[in-house]
Amino acid sequence: MALAVPIPIRRPRADRARQVADVLRQAIHRGAYDDGLPTEQQLAAEFFVSRNTIRDALAVLKNEGLIDRGPRVGTHVAQRKYDHGLDTLMGLKETFKGYGDVRNEVRAAMTVAAPPSVAQRLQLAPGQQVVFVERLRYLGGLPLSLDLTYLAPDVGAEILAQPLETNDVFALIEEVSGRRLGSATLALEAIPADPHSAAALQVPDGAALLMLERLTSLDDGRPVDLEYIRMRGDRITMRGSLVRSST
Amino acid sequence: MALAVPIPIRRPRADRARQVADVLRQAIHRGAYDDGLPTEQQLAAEFFVSRNTIRDALAVLKNEGLIDRGPRVGTHVAQRKYDHGLDTLMGLKETFKGYGDVRNEVRAAMTVAAPPSVAQRLQLAPGQQVVFVERLRYLGGLPLSLDLTYLAPDVGAEILAQPLETNDVFALIEEVSGRRLGSATLALEAIPADPHSAAALQVPDGAALLMLERLTSLDDGRPVDLEYIRMRGDRITMRGSLVRSST
Repeated sequence: MALAVPIPIRRPRADRARQVADVLRQAIHRGAYDDGLPTEQQLAAEFFVSRNTIRDALAVLKNEGLIDRGPRVGTHVAQRKYDHGLDTLMGLKETFKGYGDVRNEVRAAMTVAAPPSVAQRLQLAPGQQVVFVERLRYLGGLPLSLDLTYLAPDVGAEILAQPLETNDVFALIEEVSGRRLGSATLALEAIPADPHSAAALQVPDGAALLMLERLTSLDDGRPVDLEYIRMRGDRITMRGSLVRSST
Repeated sequence: MALAVPIPIRRPRADRARQVADVLRQAIHRGAYDDGLPTEQQLAAEFFVSRNTIRDALAVLKNEGLIDRGPRVGTHVAQRKYDHGLDTLMGLKETFKGYGDVRNEVRAAMTVAAPPSVAQRLQLAPGQQVVFVERLRYLGGLPLSLDLTYLAPDVGAEILAQPLETNDVFALIEEVSGRRLGSATLALEAIPADPHSAAALQVPDGAALLMLERLTSLDDGRPVDLEYIRMRGDRITMRGSLVRSST
Protein backbone atom coordinates (compact mmCIF):
# COMPACT_ATOMS: atom_id res chain seq x y z
CA MET A 1 0.00 0.00 0.00
CA ALA A 2 1.35 3.40 -0.95
CA LEU A 3 2.20 5.35 2.19
CA ALA A 4 1.51 9.04 1.75
CA VAL A 5 3.10 11.44 4.20
CA PRO A 6 0.75 11.38 7.20
CA ILE A 7 -1.00 14.59 8.17
CA PRO A 8 -0.26 15.58 10.90
CA ILE A 9 2.85 13.80 12.17
CA ARG A 10 1.45 13.76 15.69
CA ARG A 11 -2.18 14.37 16.62
CA PRO A 12 -3.32 16.05 19.86
CA ARG A 13 -4.36 13.57 22.52
CA ALA A 14 -7.94 14.89 22.56
CA ASP A 15 -8.24 14.04 18.87
CA ARG A 16 -7.06 10.51 19.48
CA ALA A 17 -9.39 10.20 22.48
CA ARG A 18 -12.39 11.20 20.38
CA GLN A 19 -11.37 8.67 17.78
CA VAL A 20 -11.32 5.92 20.41
CA ALA A 21 -14.54 7.12 22.04
CA ASP A 22 -16.45 6.93 18.75
CA VAL A 23 -15.46 3.33 18.09
CA LEU A 24 -16.09 2.32 21.71
CA ARG A 25 -19.51 3.98 21.71
CA GLN A 26 -20.73 1.77 18.88
CA ALA A 27 -19.17 -1.35 20.40
CA ILE A 28 -21.09 -0.58 23.60
CA HIS A 29 -24.30 -0.18 21.58
CA ARG A 30 -23.70 -3.54 19.94
CA GLY A 31 -23.49 -5.15 23.39
CA ALA A 32 -19.79 -6.02 23.20
CA TYR A 33 -19.20 -4.85 26.78
CA ASP A 34 -22.35 -5.88 28.62
CA ASP A 35 -20.21 -7.63 31.21
CA GLY A 36 -17.97 -4.60 31.71
CA LEU A 37 -15.30 -2.86 29.68
CA PRO A 38 -11.71 -4.13 29.49
CA THR A 39 -9.05 -2.45 31.63
CA GLU A 40 -7.42 0.77 30.46
CA GLN A 41 -4.31 -1.24 29.69
CA GLN A 42 -6.19 -3.73 27.53
CA LEU A 43 -8.01 -0.94 25.69
CA ALA A 44 -4.74 0.91 25.14
CA ALA A 45 -3.29 -2.20 23.48
CA GLU A 46 -6.42 -2.70 21.40
CA PHE A 47 -6.46 0.86 20.10
CA PHE A 48 -2.67 1.35 19.81
CA VAL A 49 -2.82 4.44 22.06
CA SER A 50 -1.65 5.44 25.55
CA ARG A 51 -3.59 4.81 28.74
CA ASN A 52 -4.03 8.57 29.11
CA THR A 53 -5.80 8.65 25.76
CA ILE A 54 -8.07 5.78 26.84
CA ARG A 55 -8.83 7.62 30.07
CA ASP A 56 -9.85 10.72 28.10
CA ALA A 57 -11.98 8.64 25.73
CA LEU A 58 -13.79 7.02 28.66
CA ALA A 59 -14.36 10.46 30.20
CA VAL A 60 -16.17 11.51 27.02
CA LEU A 61 -18.45 8.46 27.19
CA LYS A 62 -19.03 8.90 30.91
CA ASN A 63 -20.09 12.47 30.29
CA GLU A 64 -22.64 11.21 27.76
CA GLY A 65 -24.11 8.99 30.47
CA LEU A 66 -23.14 5.84 28.59
CA ILE A 67 -20.71 4.35 31.13
CA ASP A 68 -19.97 4.43 34.84
CA ARG A 69 -16.43 4.30 36.20
CA GLY A 70 -15.09 3.86 39.66
CA PRO A 71 -12.00 2.75 41.50
CA ARG A 72 -12.17 -0.98 42.28
CA VAL A 73 -15.45 -1.52 40.36
CA GLY A 74 -13.98 -0.81 36.92
CA THR A 75 -15.86 0.52 33.94
CA HIS A 76 -19.41 -0.58 33.22
CA VAL A 77 -22.11 0.22 30.73
CA ALA A 78 -24.51 2.56 32.56
CA GLN A 79 -27.35 2.04 30.14
CA ARG A 80 -27.71 0.26 26.84
CA LYS A 81 -29.47 2.36 24.25
CA TYR A 82 -32.57 1.09 22.53
CA ASP A 83 -32.59 0.84 18.74
CA HIS A 84 -35.48 2.42 16.90
CA GLY A 85 -35.95 1.68 13.21
CA LEU A 86 -35.46 4.21 10.44
CA ASP A 87 -36.39 1.61 7.82
CA THR A 88 -39.97 0.75 8.66
CA LEU A 89 -42.81 2.64 10.23
CA MET A 90 -43.40 1.20 13.67
CA GLY A 91 -44.66 2.42 17.01
CA LEU A 92 -42.59 2.22 20.18
CA LYS A 93 -44.56 -0.64 21.67
CA GLU A 94 -44.23 -2.74 18.53
CA THR A 95 -40.53 -1.91 18.32
CA PHE A 96 -39.70 -2.80 21.89
CA LYS A 97 -41.83 -5.91 22.17
CA GLY A 98 -39.74 -8.17 24.33
CA TYR A 99 -37.62 -5.37 25.82
CA GLY A 100 -40.06 -4.45 28.55
CA ASP A 101 -43.35 -2.66 28.76
CA VAL A 102 -43.95 0.66 27.10
CA ARG A 103 -46.21 2.68 29.40
CA ASN A 104 -47.76 5.97 28.32
CA GLU A 105 -48.60 8.74 30.76
CA VAL A 106 -51.36 10.65 28.98
CA ARG A 107 -50.75 14.32 29.76
CA ALA A 108 -53.34 15.66 27.36
CA ALA A 109 -56.14 14.20 25.26
CA MET A 110 -58.46 16.84 23.88
CA THR A 111 -59.84 18.55 20.82
CA VAL A 112 -58.13 21.78 19.80
CA ALA A 113 -58.42 24.25 16.93
CA ALA A 114 -55.67 23.45 14.43
CA PRO A 115 -53.14 26.26 13.90
CA PRO A 116 -52.72 26.99 10.16
CA SER A 117 -49.50 25.01 9.70
CA VAL A 118 -50.91 21.96 11.48
CA ALA A 119 -54.10 22.18 9.43
CA GLN A 120 -52.07 22.43 6.24
CA ARG A 121 -50.03 19.31 6.97
CA LEU A 122 -53.22 17.35 7.76
CA GLN A 123 -55.00 18.80 4.70
CA LEU A 124 -57.65 20.48 6.83
CA ALA A 125 -58.97 24.05 7.00
CA PRO A 126 -57.18 26.38 9.47
CA GLY A 127 -59.00 26.43 12.79
CA GLN A 128 -60.73 23.12 12.15
CA GLN A 129 -60.96 20.96 15.26
CA VAL A 130 -58.32 18.24 15.56
CA VAL A 131 -57.49 15.87 18.36
CA PHE A 132 -54.37 16.61 20.37
CA VAL A 133 -52.71 13.97 22.53
CA GLU A 134 -49.60 14.43 24.63
CA ARG A 135 -47.93 11.39 26.10
CA LEU A 136 -44.83 10.83 28.17
CA ARG A 137 -43.64 7.38 27.19
CA TYR A 138 -41.79 5.12 29.59
CA LEU A 139 -39.73 2.03 28.92
CA GLY A 140 -38.15 0.12 31.77
CA GLY A 141 -39.56 2.61 34.28
CA LEU A 142 -37.72 5.63 32.81
CA PRO A 143 -38.98 8.27 30.37
CA LEU A 144 -38.00 7.53 26.77
CA SER A 145 -39.86 10.20 24.84
CA LEU A 146 -42.39 12.98 25.02
CA ASP A 147 -44.83 12.77 22.11
CA LEU A 148 -47.16 15.53 20.91
CA THR A 149 -49.71 14.19 18.44
CA TYR A 150 -52.29 15.89 16.21
CA LEU A 151 -54.87 13.55 14.71
CA ALA A 152 -57.34 14.11 11.90
CA PRO A 153 -60.76 14.74 13.50
CA ASP A 154 -62.54 11.54 12.43
CA VAL A 155 -59.71 9.18 13.40
CA GLY A 156 -58.86 11.24 16.48
CA ALA A 157 -62.39 11.25 17.90
CA GLU A 158 -62.45 7.47 17.93
CA ILE A 159 -58.96 7.21 19.36
CA LEU A 160 -59.91 9.38 22.35
CA ALA A 161 -62.19 6.55 23.45
CA GLN A 162 -59.37 3.98 23.26
CA PRO A 163 -56.86 2.94 25.97
CA LEU A 164 -54.03 5.36 25.14
CA GLU A 165 -51.99 4.36 28.18
CA THR A 166 -51.12 0.93 26.84
CA ASN A 167 -51.25 1.24 23.05
CA ASP A 168 -49.28 2.78 20.21
CA VAL A 169 -51.21 5.47 18.35
CA PHE A 170 -50.22 3.67 15.13
CA ALA A 171 -52.01 0.50 16.23
CA LEU A 172 -55.06 2.48 17.33
CA ILE A 173 -55.24 4.35 14.02
CA GLU A 174 -55.25 1.08 12.09
CA GLU A 175 -57.85 -0.34 14.45
CA VAL A 176 -60.33 2.54 14.35
CA SER A 177 -59.84 3.39 10.66
CA GLY A 178 -59.90 -0.20 9.44
CA ARG A 179 -57.02 0.75 7.14
CA ARG A 180 -53.27 0.10 7.18
CA LEU A 181 -50.84 2.95 7.59
CA GLY A 182 -49.09 3.73 4.34
CA SER A 183 -46.05 5.94 4.68
CA ALA A 184 -44.58 8.82 6.64
CA THR A 185 -42.26 11.72 6.05
CA LEU A 186 -39.90 12.59 8.83
CA ALA A 187 -37.48 15.26 9.96
CA LEU A 188 -34.90 14.42 12.58
CA GLU A 189 -32.85 16.96 14.54
CA ALA A 190 -30.70 17.23 17.64
CA ILE A 191 -31.96 19.95 19.98
CA PRO A 192 -31.17 20.96 23.57
CA ALA A 193 -33.87 20.14 26.13
CA ASP A 194 -35.68 23.24 27.34
CA PRO A 195 -36.07 23.23 31.15
CA HIS A 196 -39.72 22.18 31.09
CA SER A 197 -39.18 19.27 28.69
CA ALA A 198 -36.00 18.30 30.56
CA ALA A 199 -37.97 17.97 33.80
CA ALA A 200 -40.59 15.76 32.14
CA LEU A 201 -37.95 13.53 30.55
CA GLN A 202 -35.83 13.46 33.73
CA VAL A 203 -32.70 14.79 32.02
CA PRO A 204 -30.55 17.87 32.79
CA ASP A 205 -31.48 21.22 31.22
CA GLY A 206 -29.93 21.45 27.78
CA ALA A 207 -29.46 17.68 27.42
CA ALA A 208 -29.21 16.52 23.80
CA LEU A 209 -32.57 15.28 22.49
CA LEU A 210 -33.49 13.65 19.20
CA MET A 211 -36.43 15.66 17.90
CA LEU A 212 -38.57 13.86 15.34
CA GLU A 213 -41.35 15.42 13.34
CA ARG A 214 -43.33 12.74 11.54
CA LEU A 215 -46.40 13.03 9.30
CA THR A 216 -48.05 9.68 8.77
CA SER A 217 -50.64 8.83 6.12
CA LEU A 218 -53.06 5.98 5.70
CA ASP A 219 -52.51 3.59 2.80
CA ASP A 220 -54.96 5.70 0.76
CA GLY A 221 -52.54 8.63 1.05
CA ARG A 222 -54.54 10.73 3.50
CA PRO A 223 -52.36 12.28 6.26
CA VAL A 224 -53.94 11.58 9.64
CA ASP A 225 -51.21 11.78 12.25
CA LEU A 226 -48.74 14.64 12.80
CA GLU A 227 -46.30 14.01 15.65
CA TYR A 228 -43.59 15.97 17.40
CA ILE A 229 -41.48 13.53 19.39
CA ARG A 230 -38.67 14.39 21.79
CA MET A 231 -36.51 11.34 22.45
CA ARG A 232 -33.88 11.16 25.15
CA GLY A 233 -30.54 11.23 23.35
CA ASP A 234 -29.00 8.95 25.95
CA ARG A 235 -31.64 6.23 25.49
CA ILE A 236 -32.35 5.92 21.76
CA THR A 237 -30.37 5.22 18.61
CA MET A 238 -32.15 5.44 15.27
CA ARG A 239 -30.94 2.78 12.84
CA GLY A 240 -31.53 2.31 9.17
CA SER A 241 -30.00 1.79 5.77
CA LEU A 242 -29.60 3.81 2.62
CA VAL A 243 -28.96 3.00 -1.00
CA ARG A 244 -27.12 5.06 -3.55
CA SER A 245 -29.58 6.60 -6.00
CA SER A 246 -29.35 5.31 -9.56
CA THR A 247 -28.59 8.69 -11.10
CA MET B 1 -67.37 14.67 16.19
CA ALA B 2 -67.72 13.04 19.59
CA LEU B 3 -66.27 15.28 22.26
CA ALA B 4 -64.62 13.27 24.99
CA VAL B 5 -63.93 15.02 28.27
CA PRO B 6 -60.63 16.81 27.66
CA ILE B 7 -57.63 15.84 29.77
CA PRO B 8 -56.63 18.07 31.49
CA ILE B 9 -59.13 20.91 31.70
CA ARG B 10 -56.34 23.48 31.67
CA ARG B 11 -52.74 22.81 30.64
CA PRO B 12 -49.71 24.55 32.15
CA ARG B 13 -48.45 27.45 30.04
CA ALA B 14 -45.08 25.76 29.49
CA ASP B 15 -46.88 22.80 27.90
CA ARG B 16 -48.76 25.11 25.55
CA ALA B 17 -45.54 27.00 24.77
CA ARG B 18 -43.77 23.79 23.78
CA GLN B 19 -46.70 22.87 21.59
CA VAL B 20 -46.42 26.20 19.77
CA ALA B 21 -42.62 26.04 19.58
CA ASP B 22 -42.68 22.64 17.87
CA VAL B 23 -45.04 23.78 15.13
CA LEU B 24 -43.16 27.07 14.66
CA ARG B 25 -39.81 25.28 14.46
CA GLN B 26 -40.94 23.28 11.44
CA ALA B 27 -42.54 26.30 9.80
CA ILE B 28 -39.20 28.11 10.18
CA HIS B 29 -37.41 25.12 8.61
CA ARG B 30 -39.82 25.21 5.68
CA GLY B 31 -38.93 28.85 5.07
CA ALA B 32 -42.31 30.27 6.04
CA TYR B 33 -40.69 33.10 8.02
CA ASP B 34 -37.61 34.01 5.99
CA ASP B 35 -38.74 37.64 6.01
CA GLY B 36 -39.28 37.67 9.76
CA LEU B 37 -41.80 36.18 12.14
CA PRO B 38 -45.25 37.71 12.70
CA THR B 39 -45.83 39.80 15.83
CA GLU B 40 -46.61 38.12 19.15
CA GLN B 41 -50.18 39.30 18.75
CA GLN B 42 -50.55 37.74 15.29
CA LEU B 43 -48.98 34.49 16.46
CA ALA B 44 -51.27 34.43 19.51
CA ALA B 45 -54.28 34.67 17.20
CA GLU B 46 -52.90 32.00 14.88
CA PHE B 47 -52.25 29.51 17.68
CA PHE B 48 -55.29 30.36 19.82
CA VAL B 49 -53.06 31.07 22.85
CA SER B 50 -52.03 34.08 24.94
CA ARG B 51 -49.16 36.41 24.09
CA ASN B 52 -47.34 35.14 27.18
CA THR B 53 -47.46 31.64 25.77
CA ILE B 54 -46.09 32.89 22.44
CA ARG B 55 -43.31 34.70 24.27
CA ASP B 56 -42.35 31.48 26.08
CA ALA B 57 -42.45 29.51 22.81
CA LEU B 58 -40.15 32.04 21.14
CA ALA B 59 -37.78 31.86 24.12
CA VAL B 60 -37.46 28.10 23.53
CA LEU B 61 -36.56 28.64 19.88
CA LYS B 62 -34.18 31.48 20.70
CA ASN B 63 -32.40 29.21 23.14
CA GLU B 64 -31.95 26.65 20.35
CA GLY B 65 -30.24 29.34 18.28
CA LEU B 66 -32.99 29.25 15.67
CA ILE B 67 -34.28 32.82 16.03
CA ASP B 68 -33.10 36.25 17.17
CA ARG B 69 -35.37 38.64 19.02
CA GLY B 70 -34.96 42.24 19.96
CA PRO B 71 -37.00 45.31 20.84
CA ARG B 72 -37.81 47.33 17.72
CA VAL B 73 -36.21 44.80 15.32
CA GLY B 74 -38.77 42.07 15.95
CA THR B 75 -38.19 38.35 15.61
CA HIS B 76 -36.03 36.94 12.83
CA VAL B 77 -34.73 33.59 11.75
CA ALA B 78 -31.11 33.45 12.97
CA GLN B 79 -30.13 30.58 10.70
CA ARG B 80 -32.02 28.30 8.36
CA LYS B 81 -31.08 24.70 8.82
CA TYR B 82 -29.80 22.64 5.94
CA ASP B 83 -31.68 19.47 4.98
CA HIS B 84 -29.67 16.30 4.61
CA GLY B 85 -31.29 13.26 3.04
CA LEU B 86 -32.13 10.07 4.90
CA ASP B 87 -33.50 8.51 1.72
CA THR B 88 -30.49 8.32 -0.55
CA LEU B 89 -26.79 7.97 0.05
CA MET B 90 -25.17 11.28 -0.82
CA GLY B 91 -22.16 13.24 0.28
CA LEU B 92 -22.40 16.76 1.72
CA LYS B 93 -21.06 18.46 -1.39
CA GLU B 94 -23.54 16.67 -3.66
CA THR B 95 -26.35 17.43 -1.23
CA PHE B 96 -25.64 21.13 -0.90
CA LYS B 97 -24.84 21.83 -4.52
CA GLY B 98 -26.29 25.26 -5.06
CA TYR B 99 -26.35 26.19 -1.36
CA GLY B 100 -22.75 27.35 -1.20
CA ASP B 101 -19.38 25.71 -1.17
CA VAL B 102 -18.53 22.82 1.08
CA ARG B 103 -14.93 23.23 2.18
CA ASN B 104 -13.05 20.53 4.06
CA GLU B 105 -10.28 21.28 6.51
CA VAL B 106 -8.23 18.08 6.51
CA ARG B 107 -7.11 17.55 10.10
CA ALA B 108 -5.68 14.09 9.56
CA ALA B 109 -4.90 11.87 6.57
CA MET B 110 -2.78 8.90 7.47
CA THR B 111 -2.52 5.14 7.69
CA VAL B 112 -3.31 3.62 11.08
CA ALA B 113 -3.60 0.13 12.51
CA ALA B 114 -7.31 -0.76 12.65
CA PRO B 115 -8.64 -1.44 16.15
CA PRO B 116 -10.51 -4.78 16.25
CA SER B 117 -14.01 -3.32 15.97
CA VAL B 118 -13.06 -1.10 13.03
CA ALA B 119 -11.37 -4.04 11.33
CA GLN B 120 -14.44 -6.18 11.88
CA ARG B 121 -16.81 -3.65 10.30
CA LEU B 122 -14.52 -3.32 7.27
CA GLN B 123 -14.03 -7.13 7.08
CA LEU B 124 -10.30 -6.86 7.69
CA ALA B 125 -7.94 -8.51 10.17
CA PRO B 126 -7.43 -6.67 13.49
CA GLY B 127 -4.37 -4.46 13.32
CA GLN B 128 -4.39 -4.34 9.53
CA GLN B 129 -3.44 -0.91 8.17
CA VAL B 130 -6.37 1.28 7.12
CA VAL B 131 -6.52 4.88 6.02
CA PHE B 132 -7.84 7.39 8.54
CA VAL B 133 -9.07 10.80 7.46
CA GLU B 134 -10.44 13.50 9.74
CA ARG B 135 -12.12 16.50 8.20
CA LEU B 136 -13.86 19.55 9.60
CA ARG B 137 -16.46 20.43 7.01
CA TYR B 138 -17.60 23.99 6.41
CA LEU B 139 -20.65 25.29 4.60
CA GLY B 140 -21.20 29.01 4.25
CA GLY B 141 -18.03 29.75 6.22
CA LEU B 142 -19.20 27.96 9.40
CA PRO B 143 -18.44 24.42 10.59
CA LEU B 144 -21.18 21.96 9.72
CA SER B 145 -19.70 18.63 10.76
CA LEU B 146 -16.59 16.86 11.98
CA ASP B 147 -16.06 13.60 10.08
CA LEU B 148 -13.81 10.73 11.13
CA THR B 149 -13.37 8.24 8.28
CA TYR B 150 -11.77 4.80 8.09
CA LEU B 151 -11.16 3.53 4.57
CA ALA B 152 -10.31 0.04 3.32
CA PRO B 153 -6.56 0.01 2.56
CA ASP B 154 -6.71 -0.30 -1.25
CA VAL B 155 -9.33 2.41 -1.74
CA GLY B 156 -7.86 4.55 1.04
CA ALA B 157 -4.34 4.56 -0.36
CA GLU B 158 -5.55 6.01 -3.62
CA ILE B 159 -7.80 8.53 -1.91
CA LEU B 160 -4.87 9.94 0.07
CA ALA B 161 -3.48 11.21 -3.23
CA GLN B 162 -6.73 12.98 -4.13
CA PRO B 163 -7.83 16.56 -3.30
CA LEU B 164 -9.70 15.89 -0.05
CA GLU B 165 -10.25 19.59 0.65
CA THR B 166 -12.76 20.03 -2.13
CA ASN B 167 -14.34 16.62 -2.67
CA ASP B 168 -16.76 14.27 -0.96
CA VAL B 169 -15.15 10.99 0.08
CA PHE B 170 -18.09 9.26 -1.64
CA ALA B 171 -17.19 10.80 -4.99
CA LEU B 172 -13.53 9.94 -4.52
CA ILE B 173 -14.32 6.32 -3.64
CA GLU B 174 -16.33 5.92 -6.82
CA GLU B 175 -13.57 7.59 -8.83
CA VAL B 176 -10.66 5.56 -7.54
CA SER B 177 -12.50 2.24 -7.30
CA GLY B 178 -14.24 2.53 -10.64
CA ARG B 179 -17.37 1.18 -8.91
CA ARG B 180 -20.58 2.73 -7.68
CA LEU B 181 -21.40 2.84 -4.01
CA GLY B 182 -24.12 0.35 -3.15
CA SER B 183 -25.66 0.86 0.25
CA ALA B 184 -24.94 1.94 3.80
CA THR B 185 -26.13 1.10 7.28
CA LEU B 186 -26.43 3.97 9.68
CA ALA B 187 -26.95 4.75 13.34
CA LEU B 188 -28.09 8.19 14.35
CA GLU B 189 -27.95 9.61 17.88
CA ALA B 190 -28.14 12.90 19.73
CA ILE B 191 -25.08 13.44 21.94
CA PRO B 192 -23.69 16.40 23.88
CA ALA B 193 -20.55 17.99 22.38
CA ASP B 194 -17.45 17.22 24.43
CA PRO B 195 -15.34 20.38 24.97
CA HIS B 196 -12.75 19.49 22.33
CA SER B 197 -15.34 18.71 19.63
CA ALA B 198 -17.34 21.77 20.65
CA ALA B 199 -14.32 24.01 20.06
CA ALA B 200 -13.73 22.54 16.61
CA LEU B 201 -17.40 22.91 15.63
CA GLN B 202 -17.63 26.39 17.20
CA VAL B 203 -20.54 25.49 19.50
CA PRO B 204 -20.85 25.71 23.30
CA ASP B 205 -19.72 22.75 25.43
CA GLY B 206 -22.54 20.26 25.68
CA ALA B 207 -24.37 21.55 22.61
CA ALA B 208 -26.67 18.98 21.02
CA LEU B 209 -25.00 17.19 18.11
CA LEU B 210 -26.36 14.67 15.65
CA MET B 211 -23.91 11.78 15.73
CA LEU B 212 -23.99 9.53 12.67
CA GLU B 213 -22.16 6.26 12.30
CA ARG B 214 -22.30 5.05 8.71
CA LEU B 215 -20.78 1.98 7.09
CA THR B 216 -20.82 2.24 3.31
CA SER B 217 -20.28 -0.59 0.85
CA LEU B 218 -19.47 -0.70 -2.83
CA ASP B 219 -22.10 -2.09 -5.18
CA ASP B 220 -20.37 -5.49 -4.93
CA GLY B 221 -21.20 -5.53 -1.22
CA ARG B 222 -17.70 -4.91 0.13
CA PRO B 223 -17.63 -2.39 3.03
CA VAL B 224 -14.98 0.24 2.34
CA ASP B 225 -15.90 3.35 4.32
CA LEU B 226 -16.69 3.57 8.04
CA GLU B 227 -17.52 7.09 9.20
CA TYR B 228 -18.23 8.77 12.52
CA ILE B 229 -19.82 12.13 11.80
CA ARG B 230 -20.67 14.83 14.34
CA MET B 231 -23.15 17.29 12.85
CA ARG B 232 -24.06 20.59 14.49
CA GLY B 233 -27.59 20.15 15.76
CA ASP B 234 -28.39 23.77 15.03
CA ARG B 235 -27.41 23.52 11.36
CA ILE B 236 -28.70 20.19 10.03
CA THR B 237 -32.04 18.43 9.76
CA MET B 238 -32.11 14.87 8.46
CA ARG B 239 -35.15 14.22 6.28
CA GLY B 240 -36.56 11.04 4.89
CA SER B 241 -39.58 8.85 4.50
CA LEU B 242 -40.72 5.50 5.79
CA VAL B 243 -43.23 2.92 4.71
CA ARG B 244 -45.22 0.55 6.85
CA SER B 245 -43.85 -2.97 6.53
CA SER B 246 -46.16 -5.48 4.88
CA THR B 247 -46.30 -7.86 7.86
